[in-house]
Amino acid sequence: MTTIKLPGLIDPHVHVRDLNQSHKEDWDSCTASALAGGITCVMAMPNTQPPITNLESLKMQQEAARARARCDYGIFLGAGVENIETAHTLASQTSGLKMYLDQTFGPLRLDNLDSLVAHAERWDKNRPLLCHAEGRTVAAAILVAHLANRSVHICHVSRKDEIELIAAAKMKGIQVTCEVCPHHLFLTLEGCRLPAGYIEVRPRLATQEDVDALWANLEAIDCFATDHAPHTRQEKESDSPPPGYPELETALPLWLTAIHENRLTLDDIVKRMCNQPQKIFGVPTQADTWIEIDTDLEWTVRGETMFSRAKWTPFEGWKMKGKVTAVYLREELVYDGEKVLAPLGTGRNINEETL
Amino acid sequence: MTTIKLPGLIDPHVHVRDLNQSHKEDWDSCTASALAGGITCVMAMPNTQPPITNLESLKMQQEAARARARCDYGIFLGAGVENIETAHTLASQTSGLKMYLDQTFGPLRLDNLDSLVAHAERWDKNRPLLCHAEGRTVAAAILVAHLANRSVHICHVSRKDEIELIAAAKMKGIQVTCEVCPHHLFLTLEGCRLPAGYIEVRPRLATQEDVDALWANLEAIDCFATDHAPHTRQEKESDSPPPGYPELETALPLWLTAIHENRLTLDDIVKRMCNQPQKIFGVPTQADTWIEIDTDLEWTVRGETMFSRAKWTPFEGWKMKGKVTAVYLREELVYDGEKVLAPLGTGRNINEETL
Repeated sequence: MTTIKLPGLIDPHVHVRDLNQSHKEDWDSCTASALAGGITCVMAMPNTQPPITNLESLKMQQEAARARARCDYGIFLGAGVENIETAHTLASQTSGLKMYLDQTFGPLRLDNLDSLVAHAERWDKNRPLLCHAEGRTVAAAILVAHLANRSVHICHVSRKDEIELIAAAKMKGIQVTCEVCPHHLFLTLEGCRLPAGYIEVRPRLATQEDVDALWANLEAIDCFATDHAPHTRQEKESDSPPPGYPELETALPLWLTAIHENRLTLDDIVKRMCNQPQKIFGVPTQADTWIEIDTDLEWTVRGETMFSRAKWTPFEGWKMKGKVTAVYLREELVYDGEKVLAPLGTGRNINEETL
Repeated sequence: MTTIKLPGLIDPHVHVRDLNQSHKEDWDSCTASALAGGITCVMAMPNTQPPITNLESLKMQQEAARARARCDYGIFLGAGVENIETAHTLASQTSGLKMYLDQTFGPLRLDNLDSLVAHAERWDKNRPLLCHAEGRTVAAAILVAHLANRSVHICHVSRKDEIELIAAAKMKGIQVTCEVCPHHLFLTLEGCRLPAGYIEVRPRLATQEDVDALWANLEAIDCFATDHAPHTRQEKESDSPPPGYPELETALPLWLTAIHENRLTLDDIVKRMCNQPQKIFGVPTQADTWIEIDTDLEWTVRGETMFSRAKWTPFEGWKMKGKVTAVYLREELVYDGEKVLAPLGTGRNINEETL
């Protein structure tokens, strides 16, 4: 057994749900799931019910998080056509502005060039501007941010043309960062044996060529993000299955297993799940916070044993090598390899200024 | 009466039709219409029947033009997914590569980022790359061209957000040019009294705010282009009216009338219908070629008197001030203010190298 210590990991793309979707997940179950995955800080997406688009809805989520989060957190604001003039006034209380430019789960969606430009121009240049953008929309988002003299973060990049475009933009000195999710690095649409409804995710699973291109362009990938997006089995088995996979507890084990396969180094992981997310999303250093990993522990993924309320995983039955054995948050043992010990409300909002 | 002489004008966006759509227009009627409008060089769009996408279809259009064109011409190639590897081999025989990235008339259409990038990278950097792009797609096309270290020409810009984006990109030193059509400068969707089918055009007519923004950003507009797109009355009155207006004979009169209204200067017109199209599209100087204009002649637009086979116009009944009274092509009088005198086959292909 080889035990190593790493800093607490940061996941910049988590759907915490809560409030009107607590049956899927809430701050309690989501952050327990994060800790069990070695993640000590989650950044919460705003396509909740209600969506986080104004002071009132932000405050509701902040209160829910304050009451129930077991690990640290930041909350993103959602960009809509109705908050173009007000979103930026909430910047200091959020971890960034998320723009949904292509199909996603929930009602937040920006379709037009003018609203994209308006948000890019108005949003705080020192806070991240994040885009759900696919295909040509990735190119549009990068140009619009470039013309607004600001950086942009492209979420869950999934395709060859997208990662190559981002790599080319970086080469040209354009300020763009990006993240890639485990499912887009380990699953293909053709090879995936998930039942029909379970397979749904946005961006969709892609081809082996896309997966290969993501691995080939690892240097252009700033962050690994889970896009943890829990839905119940019943919902996934329904006639209109919502897109998304729960992934907080499998991400790090997948990366650790990839180390054994010589596809990644430990440094690759720390860079993309700690140093770079910290820098991009302005996450303060989590003092006296670390995780312990048994890099040789072999285990089999089982959704039913997970802390996430979804109780299923797209990696069901996968053999992993490497597991989190302990998580310490501010010197306190908050996960012991089996149980989450952090009480509700342990987590802190990483954005100092709260309402 | 004030008669002035101008160089022959260039229209970089003309749907000549011909071949399987000769009932709408052909090189004969289209170039007669051009000459009557003071235009001595037309650039023909490739969304014909069959579309111009390879050597064979290019040759068919070249032969049709050689036989019937009454004024000079260039022919654009159409970009498809099937000619990514071959299009650039035909570059020297064309006036540019047209990419249809948004909804248009005909089957040519590129939807994906990868095909857009592939054409932008492969197409001759000294020949124009033209895009039918609307909204966010304008931003995508500009970034993709920028990353491929080449210029891009945005066709028929119609909206405020688009022209402002282009102006911002130019300010940033990005190589982008654009054109605007008379109908987007003189008509709005709300104000237009055309019957339902006749009103259809792509990009659609926009709002007064869009029209005002185009006029306000005149400096960012490199060319005036007609997007002359003839369809028969019967087609426009059908259940699925095709988009497009015939405009070769009304463009210059509209600009001349705008001079009287102090909205344009003669220099604005010459720059955008001669000097800049010449430069952008590599049109050789048309020696001993000029047009004569009576700037004070008042007349009323009547579609039925036009040379275009469509025999209707979106400007029916409009009062104009200014009219072409003579056109000379290589010293020959080819239009006398009433009749087109140029015989079929008078026109030359401006791209020296022919098949």
